[in-house]
Amino acid sequence: MAKVADIYFKTHPWKVIEEGFDPAYGRVSESIFSLANESIGVRGYFEEGGSLDSLRGAYANGVYDIAHIGKSYKGIVEKTHFMIPTADWLLTGLTLDGETLDLGRVKFRDFRRELDMRAGTLTRSFVWETASGKELKLTFLRFLDMEHRERAYQRLTLEALNFDGAVRLCAGVSFAVTHEGHGACFWGDTRKEAGANRLCLQSRTKESNQEVFAGVLLTLPKGAEVQSGDKALYLCCHLPLRKGTAQTLDRRAVILFDGSQGDELWARGKQALQAAEQVSLEQAVAAQRAYWDRFWSILDIELEPAGTDEEMIRAVAAEQQGIRFCSFQLAQTYNGGSTRHNIGAKGLTGEAYNGHAFWDTESCCLPFYLFTNPEAARDLLLFRYNTLPMARERAKMLDCQGACYPIATLNGDEACPLWQHASLQLQPSTAVAYGIWHYVHLTEDEDFLFAYGAEMLLEIARFLKSRAALGNRTGQFGFFGVMGPDEFHMMVNNNAYTNYMGMRTLSFAAQVMDRMAAERPDAFRKLSSRTGFTAAEADEWKHIAENMYLPMGADGLIEQHDGFFDLPHTDIGSIPVSQFPLYDHWSYDRIYRTDMIKQPDVLMMLYLYNSSFSEEVKRVNYRFYQPRTIHESSLSPAIHSILAAELHEMDEAVNFFGYATRLDLDNYNRNTREGLHITSIAMAWANIVYGFAGLRSDGALLRFAPRLPQRWKKLTFELTYRGRLLRVCMERGQTRFSLQAGAPMTLQVYDGLHTLGTEELLVPNLCD
Amino acid sequence: MAKVADIYFKTHPWKVIEEGFDPAYGRVSESIFSLANESIGVRGYFEEGGSLDSLRGAYANGVYDIAHIGKSYKGIVEKTHFMIPTADWLLTGLTLDGETLDLGRVKFRDFRRELDMRAGTLTRSFVWETASGKELKLTFLRFLDMEHRERAYQRLTLEALNFDGAVRLCAGVSFAVTHEGHGACFWGDTRKEAGANRLCLQSRTKESNQEVFAGVLLTLPKGAEVQSGDKALYLCCHLPLRKGTAQTLDRRAVILFDGSQGDELWARGKQALQAAEQVSLEQAVAAQRAYWDRFWSILDIELEPAGTDEEMIRAVAAEQQGIRFCSFQLAQTYNGGSTRHNIGAKGLTGEAYNGHAFWDTESCCLPFYLFTNPEAARDLLLFRYNTLPMARERAKMLDCQGACYPIATLNGDEACPLWQHASLQLQPSTAVAYGIWHYVHLTEDEDFLFAYGAEMLLEIARFLKSRAALGNRTGQFGFFGVMGPDEFHMMVNNNAYTNYMGMRTLSFAAQVMDRMAAERPDAFRKLSSRTGFTAAEADEWKHIAENMYLPMGADGLIEQHDGFFDLPHTDIGSIPVSQFPLYDHWSYDRIYRTDMIKQPDVLMMLYLYNSSFSEEVKRVNYRFYQPRTIHESSLSPAIHSILAAELHEMDEAVNFFGYATRLDLDNYNRNTREGLHITSIAMAWANIVYGFAGLRSDGALLRFAPRLPQRWKKLTFELTYRGRLLRVCMERGQTRFSLQAGAPMTLQVYDGLHTLGTEELLVPNLCD
Repeated sequence: MAKVADIYFKTHPWKVIEEGFDPAYGRVSESIFSLANESIGVRGYFEEGGSLDSLRGAYANGVYDIAHIGKSYKGIVEKTHFMIPTADWLLTGLTLDGETLDLGRVKFRDFRRELDMRAGTLTRSFVWETASGKELKLTFLRFLDMEHRERAYQRLTLEALNFDGAVRLCAGVSFAVTHEGHGACFWGDTRKEAGANRLCLQSRTKESNQEVFAGVLLTLPKGAEVQSGDKALYLCCHLPLRKGTAQTLDRRAVILFDGSQGDELWARGKQALQAAEQVSLEQAVAAQRAYWDRFWSILDIELEPAGTDEEMIRAVAAEQQGIRFCSFQLAQTYNGGSTRHNIGAKGLTGEAYNGHAFWDTESCCLPFYLFTNPEAARDLLLFRYNTLPMARERAKMLDCQGACYPIATLNGDEACPLWQHASLQLQPSTAVAYGIWHYVHLTEDEDFLFAYGAEMLLEIARFLKSRAALGNRTGQFGFFGVMGPDEFHMMVNNNAYTNYMGMRTLSFAAQVMDRMAAERPDAFRKLSSRTGFTAAEADEWKHIAENMYLPMGADGLIEQHDGFFDLPHTDIGSIPVSQFPLYDHWSYDRIYRTDMIKQPDVLMMLYLYNSSFSEEVKRVNYRFYQPRTIHESSLSPAIHSILAAELHEMDEAVNFFGYATRLDLDNYNRNTREGLHITSIAMAWANIVYGFAGLRSDGALLRFAPRLPQRWKKLTFELTYRGRLLRVCMERGQTRFSLQAGAPMTLQVYDGLHTLGTEELLVPNLCD
Repeated sequence: MAKVADIYFKTHPWKVIEEGFDPAYGRVSESIFSLANESIGVRGYFEEGGSLDSLRGAYANGVYDIAHIGKSYKGIVEKTHFMIPTADWLLTGLTLDGETLDLGRVKFRDFRRELDMRAGTLTRSFVWETASGKELKLTFLRFLDMEHRERAYQRLTLEALNFDGAVRLCAGVSFAVTHEGHGACFWGDTRKEAGANRLCLQSRTKESNQEVFAGVLLTLPKGAEVQSGDKALYLCCHLPLRKGTAQTLDRRAVILFDGSQGDELWARGKQALQAAEQVSLEQAVAAQRAYWDRFWSILDIELEPAGTDEEMIRAVAAEQQGIRFCSFQLAQTYNGGSTRHNIGAKGLTGEAYNGHAFWDTESCCLPFYLFTNPEAARDLLLFRYNTLPMARERAKMLDCQGACYPIATLNGDEACPLWQHASLQLQPSTAVAYGIWHYVHLTEDEDFLFAYGAEMLLEIARFLKSRAALGNRTGQFGFFGVMGPDEFHMMVNNNAYTNYMGMRTLSFAAQVMDRMAAERPDAFRKLSSRTGFTAAEADEWKHIAENMYLPMGADGLIEQHDGFFDLPHTDIGSIPVSQFPLYDHWSYDRIYRTDMIKQPDVLMMLYLYNSSFSEEVKRVNYRFYQPRTIHESSLSPAIHSILAAELHEMDEAVNFFGYATRLDLDNYNRNTREGLHITSIAMAWANIVYGFAGLRSDGALLRFAPRLPQRWKKLTFELTYRGRLLRVCMERGQTRFSLQAGAPMTLQVYDGLHTLGTEELLVPNLCD
């Protein structure tokens, strides 16, 4: 782990605080202070704009445009799609004494920005000192409604500290927004309507033909004048200020993207704006707080330091803030509000990765939702069900049968123009199958399984069957020409992860079809007739699964893929820090020809199907692969931390955890400016629950194996599980399990079985 | 060999004839009737243009422009270059009775086009019948001067068959020419000057800043008027015709591209035009004929059919025409006129492959030149010497040392934007080393070796050293993450061809440096000081060469690369013909995951270093790999034919040969419309000399093993060899060797050694 923290923000248990403003961190702060409510998101940019470096991004989930790449070889995508910024609803221009507010140019003091994770609000305040000596205190509050997801709010408070006078204010909304990478605006003709206190716009993307309505209501003094700009509207006025008296301007905004278009969307947008008008900003703030209170009551992870040493207290406080920040961001990005959305690698916090969701959703994010918000987990899987037609098309493009899920997508279509990823990585498809299995395993939601899961499994199994082949020397099945999770080895054969996940998928799919035939004969008949499924197919899946090649030696060491053990060795410790990320500093092909691996591959499968492998197998493989892993994926450290904890390598576990939990707050990867690592953030949660509490959820019972790091006195968290709310409190020496709600259950803790009822269960820690 | 002939042209021993015109073959004919003289080339397009499908391409060797691809990963080219058409000097518009000549629209008869390979001229004639009933016979003659390579000629003969009257004629020259793939003209501002009978233009490319002068002299009646067009000039006049009297108009053109620019080029161009004016068209025709007479006296391969059966006579006549067409085209494309040129895969006959030269030059074309025009072979190697600086740059881009030669280039820079080829294929570099070795081995030109060869070898060896690595399991050196000659397997390890060629290269380079130190100490000191070479480097090369891993089993079977024998099997006979070429019909990734191979890989190395492998090794590997080879490279069949002949598989040898020798004349690959397969054409020559005459040139002596196919009575050809002209006449039962010039020599025929002096040497055939 050559990566180190770059500390800028203040530590606080429930807040992220910026005191004073350093322009060098401008974009990092914008990412950190991003807000979202799943439907819409906005980076922490300054309402007033200005000359400072900024990525002024407000986004609506699922809004994208299309770029045509052109035809090359068959199976390589000819067009891609990418998230574009949508209406900027925060525009607020201020002029005082002929000076325009621009923090890059004017004099100011007492700058403070605060993200309050309990309130779900972002506040920024500072005092503007004009050249003529006037001092105006400005406070900007903003938040996005977590219940009415089309609604957003802004409150601007102005307080003249040493003068009476007027400030000129222009508040607007605009579709003239630029996608940074493409350097272009993707919005076309824009419908506009302005009233005394309201501005309505509606625009359409150039290629994807998506329409968005954006309206704002403003509490401005009477007589504000309307100004019309390119795809934009403004209300401008002179605002009289009296020394010492704070004046407040509220803005309620609606950003509506619901699939409707034209007049229908326009009518719905205006209706939504009318509904928003019925709620005062104070009421909205209170509702927001109530939402987050409910959220934290289930989801909070509490840490206490083990000693009184200041260094330790500081470190644990940073971890406490880090883990709350992770949970907060994850819940903002996705919480099951829609089955049309997935979880972009950067969520709604930036344009890097094009807003695309990867296989991270099922492999890394799903457990967070399974144990905090199972409905959201189900909705994520329904996103895959809804995009099954595109996955079927993709399989055809690849000369395969069934359905192949995309490595990168917003709308279900494969959007990755790099064939080596899009055509060779089977893990998105096996991850969907794994996600279905994990969801049903934990929730027992068999209605979902048979109504949606079975069809996905059936088509994924068909894809895998058509993609698998019989090795000439092994005489067993395997996948040839693939790229496993370790993206530093391309087009390899018999990648252990891919073979193993393929085997589990085929065997699960066959088993589900068998059960469905017996248990839901009507639904089974309908599905069979719709898809042409025959029992012979399932037999073939079983045959392939039973004869899948898994290259494990007598000592339990698994060869990542054919020939991996023959590769030249790279001592990863010898690579200078200045050469990271390797993709930027090494010749592309050079990355691919040694035993250095990018992220867990064999270890990933030991994590996902943990109960299927002995501790000895995990130890042997962890010891072999960990020193060969360079963690160029931000998902990598947490997986290592979880396995290290299981293997009692607590120093390594804690070391990897530090990175996972404050990845963005301390800008470990030096690219937080591009947006937050949303899917890695999910792994920070898993790092605690699967790592230090030792949760395993792939066996018949929930199993815990608490291993409390030395520097913590206490770690508390709650999980939802089949209608229960289970509280786990790890202390030095023992762990307390209690049911906050729900029926008694049997738990496994280490090797022992325990019944948990109304009484608290105390289990001594085995390995403090 | 699923590919079949598509017969259109008439067979003739010295000509290619088109009788009547079928527009469906319009572009195929344009390719077949291409002319070139190494410096300039022109497709067989109609002078008058028209509405028929056409690729109107006139090219100057080395003229290209540049496209910026943009930055992606390190080592992937950010810009590429591609041959563009240069001045169209043949423009000839004709109007009669208000009708414009356009063979797509007017009525005509008696169309005939003839490429005369002994004269080096192309003639086209037909009778134009206007709607009003006038009949005008037109004959267009054109040729490119093989001595004064900037000169080109056209003669237009007009004969009014049934009328007196006038035809309107516009003769021009133009830089307003479009690159078909880019759909754009790459020529910028154009300088123009027109006189009574001359038109001069000079233009500059947009990005590459190359300048070309184009001038024409026209024998037009007095009073022709000048017309100026976009980047073009014309002379137009009314030409009185008298019934039954042929009238002749001559055009002498100069296309000058010599590296000079601006006023200097303008002056040189006009000078060259003046010089051209001193030679009449008749004189030029005679000189052209004399050039080709000299050429054929060395290079002709004569065939005689073995029987009187008409079918057989026809078949052998087609082969005779085919092999002459191949030699003719090859000599037109490159004959050592310049060390700034190489041999584009399509020569100067089309824009496919962007005019790029590949490793085909050294691996496939060089023997043709070594035995017919050794100076040209030397010049081809000097092209590589001149581009050594770019190869050094390329090695740096790839994080390697030394020099890495490009997979595709016009100017020495890597121009292939596909990283999987440009970064993984080491064969261009080892082919250059092989070419140096083969050239010096055959010519004993040690001045070349030490003045140029040594430096190239030294830098290639450095590249290979830095690219090689120690396999972890084999404990031997190898190349990891490569693509061998078989492009259907990408990023493989220990590719046998690459390892073996690397071993030979390293060992040859070390040996040359050792010899140079001893034999040319001054030059050695200079080279060492210029390149920083130390003896320790050569020791390291030897060490790697001695410890190179070559995966050959006890039975002699060589595994193409690690894991090849484990790949799923594809029965290539089961692939429907409609799926060729596979790149167009199969998902890109699907091509790469079976044991189907595109072109010889192990067999290529057995061909190049033939004397180093036993017949048994060749047999075992031929039998294994031949049925797995799909021949998607047009270079493939000839290599198979040569090895089949050596292994007495004469039916297969003859079968593969049929394809090689008439590949373009019979449009086997259905893509001759894009241009001729110039480098494959070289293999047709090798197919006869190395295949049926069994020449082997990699041993101490020239070795022959004649194997005359049943249907030939006689096969005669000549070779130049160390100042000798050796004639080989294979007959049924015996082969006659005779020296046309030069000192006595020792030859090996089959296993016997023979001295060849002034007397003819008769050796009985062993395997008729």
